[in-house]
Amino acid sequence: MGDDQRGDAGQGTYVEEGAAFTRDENYISDRITADGASGWPVEAGRYRLVAARACPWANRTLIVRRLLGLEDALSLGLCGPTHDQRSWTFDLDPGGVDPVLKIPRLQDAYFARYPDYPRGITVPAIVEESSGKVVTNDFKQMTLDFSTQWTALHRDGAPELYPEGMRDEMDALMQTIHVDVNNGVYKAGFAGSQEAYDAAFLALFARLDELSERLSTRRFLMGDTITEADVRLFTTLARFDAVYHGHFKCNRTKLTEMPVLWAYARDLFQTPGFGDTTDFRQIKQHYYIVHRDVNPTGIVPLGPDTSVWLTPHGREELGGRPFGDGTPPPPVRESEAVDPAGRA
Amino acid sequence: MGDDQRGDAGQGTYVEEGAAFTRDENYISDRITADGASGWPVEAGRYRLVAARACPWANRTLIVRRLLGLEDALSLGLCGPTHDQRSWTFDLDPGGVDPVLKIPRLQDAYFARYPDYPRGITVPAIVEESSGKVVTNDFKQMTLDFSTQWTALHRDGAPELYPEGMRDEMDALMQTIHVDVNNGVYKAGFAGSQEAYDAAFLALFARLDELSERLSTRRFLMGDTITEADVRLFTTLARFDAVYHGHFKCNRTKLTEMPVLWAYARDLFQTPGFGDTTDFRQIKQHYYIVHRDVNPTGIVPLGPDTSVWLTPHGREELGGRPFGDGTPPPPVRESEAVDPAGRA
Repeated sequence: MGDDQRGDAGQGTYVEEGAAFTRDENYISDRITADGASGWPVEAGRYRLVAARACPWANRTLIVRRLLGLEDALSLGLCGPTHDQRSWTFDLDPGGVDPVLKIPRLQDAYFARYPDYPRGITVPAIVEESSGKVVTNDFKQMTLDFSTQWTALHRDGAPELYPEGMRDEMDALMQTIHVDVNNGVYKAGFAGSQEAYDAAFLALFARLDELSERLSTRRFLMGDTITEADVRLFTTLARFDAVYHGHFKCNRTKLTEMPVLWAYARDLFQTPGFGDTTDFRQIKQHYYIVHRDVNPTGIVPLGPDTSVWLTPHGREELGGRPFGDGTPPPPVRESEAVDPAGRA
Repeated sequence: MGDDQRGDAGQGTYVEEGAAFTRDENYISDRITADGASGWPVEAGRYRLVAARACPWANRTLIVRRLLGLEDALSLGLCGPTHDQRSWTFDLDPGGVDPVLKIPRLQDAYFARYPDYPRGITVPAIVEESSGKVVTNDFKQMTLDFSTQWTALHRDGAPELYPEGMRDEMDALMQTIHVDVNNGVYKAGFAGSQEAYDAAFLALFARLDELSERLSTRRFLMGDTITEADVRLFTTLARFDAVYHGHFKCNRTKLTEMPVLWAYARDLFQTPGFGDTTDFRQIKQHYYIVHRDVNPTGIVPLGPDTSVWLTPHGREELGGRPFGDGTPPPPVRESEAVDPAGRA
């Protein structure tokens, strides 16, 4: 989604004075399904995922696509970290145009689908390559469908990220993580009143403490093996010290000061698919440059040191099989590698 | 000084776009001297120190006055943490008026001295009680004069904070600390360009690393005993994680992540005169509420946890005699105690 809540995709207004932050959670909810009953059948080479490395919600899709080995089936377009007033843009591509969709702004794909599209131009979005139309930007469903609908196109050894027997528990857990953590940091950072901030801050750290407790005896959120729930928690933790601690005032403690969560986050970071899709430079640029009503100067902090993400985490002691019956993905392909300037 | 650089004492503009931050360092430079040759002789009961606990420059005077036992000789007026557009104010006092000077705003004492006073209304200031006029606001000279001019009024056992044989070395050291650390955090936080910020950030942490190295083998900056140099470094360190790390983007590392400096800072904090003059609540309120062009919402972060200031520091192992041939001051008097809500 980036931060284009309230239909405003650009730099400018994120904080509403006196008000709590509420995210517009209405999305284009079409699904791409295995049986095609939705009108959008899973098909290799038909769709393009448009993401931005900066955005935590889009980062999920980068991780899951890579863990499941969907790179050849589902192409990838990447927007730069600092969208303009109107839209996320393909400013990192030669000529500022996505090489497949041939558009400079993601909004062009939204407008191709709905000429009067009234809401935020958000990433991640999946676009049909031939028509140039956005099929869906429903980020919560998207990665679950990668796991459950795109199975025929998974790589050999793809992990089960949304195992059938666990879905009720996972759905409930992921919802609390969404409310208090993934979106909780935004509620703290975009609070328009001290009361709204205080409430978000307290809920966030209470939930993080609870998750620390849960993770003190199990290697991953659902037990021995990585699931979608870990992906969702990870993308917030990866941004915590770089952005949320200072920019969003989530400063009870840094992630590095929460020993269990910090070890857990490094464990994931050092697992193929997580750290190798994380670009700290783009992450910092996005938040600090785009949210001018939180950071009027647009100055991007030089800290923190991110090399600590590569230090030993010791979580192997808890045992576990990170990929279950599957295997890790191969190294990230050169064309999709994170720029060295953004790496830990 | 608070942050009333550029003659602007109030909420509002601290960052000048495209420019580095430059502090107006012109002060009313009269001195109060032992021999009275300046026209302002040291005299018990004649002057009133006006400070604000929030302000690092004023905090120096609170520490030195207490270490030297000048409380009975030099009375104390305290402004609240969040001055208005025009001036620091006595909003914490009953009726919003200083009980001795009978003025609501510190600027009244400046205007009593110079009706057209054109520069910032800064703390600390020393005011002659009978005339209500500011004698000096030259904060750098003020505490040195407490040590060297007010000697006849020192308590028994007052430490030597500015020993004669060390002054050349101390002056040079304190100047580098001023440029890169005390004022360096402001240069980072009020930078109007990425370049100005980057330069301030790099100079700050390079200097802190150098000071860490120096303090790794000696308990205090000048050796075995606390001096004025420690007072000056302390007031910035005390504000580091609470304010400068996030609000001023000094985020390479928290103070708590710099082991030598963190132990050194706690050692001082737990020494009478330092922690008992530090009010974390007022400190946070000041910066986050007053600098609206850095923090437009005025929301004050709930973190960080300050109780860590009371943890063991282990610096006794380096030996040293914190007060030299002197003794610690007695417990802070009740009327000058920091509000419990502001304590670690």
